[in-house]
Amino acid sequence: MIFYDCATAPSPRRARMFIAEKGLRVESREISIAKGEQLTPEFRAVNPDAMLPALEIAPGQVLTENLGIAAYLEARFPEPPLMGRSAEEKGAVMMWNAIAETQCGLAVAEALRNANPHMKDRALPGPENFPQIPELAARGLRRIDLFFDKLDRHLAGRDFVAGDGFSMADITCFVFVDFARVVKRRVGPAHGDLLRWYESVKARPSAQA
Amino acid sequence: MIFYDCATAPSPRRARMFIAEKGLRVESREISIAKGEQLTPEFRAVNPDAMLPALEIAPGQVLTENLGIAAYLEARFPEPPLMGRSAEEKGAVMMWNAIAETQCGLAVAEALRNANPHMKDRALPGPENFPQIPELAARGLRRIDLFFDKLDRHLAGRDFVAGDGFSMADITCFVFVDFARVVKRRVGPAHGDLLRWYESVKARPSAQA
Repeated sequence: MIFYDCATAPSPRRARMFIAEKGLRVESREISIAKGEQLTPEFRAVNPDAMLPALEIAPGQVLTENLGIAAYLEARFPEPPLMGRSAEEKGAVMMWNAIAETQCGLAVAEALRNANPHMKDRALPGPENFPQIPELAARGLRRIDLFFDKLDRHLAGRDFVAGDGFSMADITCFVFVDFARVVKRRVGPAHGDLLRWYESVKARPSAQA
Repeated sequence: MIFYDCATAPSPRRARMFIAEKGLRVESREISIAKGEQLTPEFRAVNPDAMLPALEIAPGQVLTENLGIAAYLEARFPEPPLMGRSAEEKGAVMMWNAIAETQCGLAVAEALRNANPHMKDRALPGPENFPQIPELAARGLRRIDLFFDKLDRHLAGRDFVAGDGFSMADITCFVFVDFARVVKRRVGPAHGDLLRWYESVKARPSAQA
């Protein structure tokens, strides 16, 4: 397998943490988004959508999207399970993964991509250029604040986002909450339960992978 | 189980098709988004996010988000599989499901919610109001066109979106492609492979569920 990664971006970090939590060693190639390497013909031969992460699982056979990569790895390397053991847990992991993607991940992307002068015309990832929409940056910040409140409430009395153990839901929430620093949103003492959980995930070796 | 549904909206339709393809009969309750019933205290006691679909799997235990509901049902009722059999297929189904959600579902929502006068201040689903952003409506239309092109190319020589059989990837692509009619985008002869696949999914009993 070849894992196409980018050290600075949140989406490939989710897959990198998933791989590390599985205890897998996978050959990886760094694609620098800062240098625009995801838009080169070489990388677009791997993923025409010009997005990271991507996992080549056999010559010419490439999976993209975090859930595509995770579902494959979970089926091939079931232990430790990161997508739930029981039906209830599998449902809860996917539910919180989706909530984190739409309510936090997309919000951070909106806030960053529509305001950062280095991302002019890169309001969306992918091969097509889209102009920035400043109102979307403001909306993104508001949505991040709402998500921090929500996740803090949810984590009261809990050690993990979904089910009884560490899962992909923790990875997705952690990576997006952590990445919110790029738009000056950081977890602080006002969100005590969120902060406790955040520090516990940050202390895992996979968070340094 | 109690399935909270809305006949007019694409997200609950995805879950409704999934349930129908599994051959399950589930008690359902209609929540009218047109009447704003998802925002009532009664429904927010079921799902504080004020979104559909939702599936109560035990008294007081509710799963939301299509993937939360699908992962639970797939684990509890494995046949027929709708999320892939092999690791490769599971990966491909989740990959295409994610591509359809972000590149088509979100695009249709952008185009509809930011332009429809009946959706003033409802630019996003959920309990919070957000004002419409007209530029986002135009961007959504452009993204739908790009997705129709992409899915048409992908379906050349294929009967199903992912793997060797009908899956959740077909459901998600079909529901969002079909819902694009609300912003005047319809599959036509210019997209021959997309049209052939679209008609084949439309002919399934689950598409009328």
